[in-house]
Amino acid sequence: MIDLQRLSSDQPIGVFDSGLGGLTVVRQILRLMPGEDVVYLGDSARVPYGIKSPETIRAFAHEDAAFLLRQNPKLIVVACNTASAVAMDSLRQAMPVEVVGVVEPAAQRAVELAAGRGIGVIGTEATITSGAYQRALHALNGGSEIMAAAAPLLVPIVEEGRPQEDPITTYVLTDYLHELQRKRPAVLILGCTHYPLLSLAIGKLMGPDTALLDPGEAVARRVQEFLRSHDLLAGRAAGQLQCYSTDNPERFSKLATRFLGRDVGQVKRIGTEELAKLSKPV
Amino acid sequence: MIDLQRLSSDQPIGVFDSGLGGLTVVRQILRLMPGEDVVYLGDSARVPYGIKSPETIRAFAHEDAAFLLRQNPKLIVVACNTASAVAMDSLRQAMPVEVVGVVEPAAQRAVELAAGRGIGVIGTEATITSGAYQRALHALNGGSEIMAAAAPLLVPIVEEGRPQEDPITTYVLTDYLHELQRKRPAVLILGCTHYPLLSLAIGKLMGPDTALLDPGEAVARRVQEFLRSHDLLAGRAAGQLQCYSTDNPERFSKLATRFLGRDVGQVKRIGTEELAKLSKPV
Repeated sequence: MIDLQRLSSDQPIGVFDSGLGGLTVVRQILRLMPGEDVVYLGDSARVPYGIKSPETIRAFAHEDAAFLLRQNPKLIVVACNTASAVAMDSLRQAMPVEVVGVVEPAAQRAVELAAGRGIGVIGTEATITSGAYQRALHALNGGSEIMAAAAPLLVPIVEEGRPQEDPITTYVLTDYLHELQRKRPAVLILGCTHYPLLSLAIGKLMGPDTALLDPGEAVARRVQEFLRSHDLLAGRAAGQLQCYSTDNPERFSKLATRFLGRDVGQVKRIGTEELAKLSKPV
Repeated sequence: MIDLQRLSSDQPIGVFDSGLGGLTVVRQILRLMPGEDVVYLGDSARVPYGIKSPETIRAFAHEDAAFLLRQNPKLIVVACNTASAVAMDSLRQAMPVEVVGVVEPAAQRAVELAAGRGIGVIGTEATITSGAYQRALHALNGGSEIMAAAAPLLVPIVEEGRPQEDPITTYVLTDYLHELQRKRPAVLILGCTHYPLLSLAIGKLMGPDTALLDPGEAVARRVQEFLRSHDLLAGRAAGQLQCYSTDNPERFSKLATRFLGRDVGQVKRIGTEELAKLSKPV
């Protein structure tokens, strides 16, 4: 289905997420491959995905991917853990280009780091309920104990802009991590794009024996490997980032800096209605 | 624009909300008018509205209302405080039937109860930022001090099913209500459909001198007055409730009981894509 011969290294990498969080993944991609052009779609009008049903998440993810496909990408990254957890198989079947999700690369990296010791994962309700991380970890590893916990309030806490050292942030984290703290896994997967913004607070609670794993790093490495092995790495010194949002672009711009670590430039709007229309075959 | 002559008392009341919360308003409507048929639409696939931009909220609200219009209602209730706060004027212009929002009836009731003493309001980010409650209260009253506070984490806390007596619920409420506690308003408007589910905890923090106002009651009374004065009250002993959800109907059913106070019966699904299509003129 994927005709790699027709792809060129000049084409952009497409990345989508339910909102702004996926910019933490873009940050890692650009750190590793600063020469790549990236087209990013944040579905901020319908955020969050993590509290919704698999059917709805799948429908939205397909619309997001179909929009990116029109930007002529050489590869599509599903930066949203929730969409990766429930929609990867159907996206891979539907898309004529390589699709990289966050779950599988993160699980593989976790297994390497844990080396048989315990692995924890925290994520949205939909991600944890899907069991995608748990399945990927079980399939890969040779005996690590696996512990998973849903942490639904963390996304709204980050979106509210509450600082890591805020007592409510700490209190909520303590509530979710209580069981994991006791079990002290060697690795804790931050299974939602928002969680790296809480990594200091999470690290403090988990202690020095638990390594925190930001899936963005593992995804960026996986993307680099794929592009390199297919001779598709961009040659330019610095690439361009173009962001699209289904909600207000100004609001997106304003909040994006925290996730990307720098200014995102001009954001374009694409309404959800147009998105749905574009996702139909022409 | 509204041709009341052509309406019949047998027609249903249409109610929409961004999700499940509006069922707290339906609960009040059915308590006051148990003979009414109600058609409810919960836009659970795109919930919440309160963190999104006015343009997006308006677009979604118009799609929701247009869907209800196809159910041939005698009146439409905008149960969502956020949609009421930012979309009432444009909905009233667009709809050929009476549209009742929550902000104005709640503000009027608050002014009556406060009798010149202070009035507080808590709501989503979009509701409080819009200033709709503050404007409605200022327009109606003769001197009450008005205090408004956004409380973004309360919706996810209720949706997570966290009990009122949970320490995190108390802690978060204390954070948001701190300033209001100090000012001790005579009335506190619970300006989001989820908040009545936290009324015990809020009441405990605010103390006995502050009356909590559930807008659902004021809305139900406003609907009853309108229907009575236009001879449109249903004559039957017990009406039917039909719920539609844009997300998974089973999930909606399961969670709905907490908001409605009883079983919602069979829920039908209407996808957001279909919703957008139906909202276009035929």
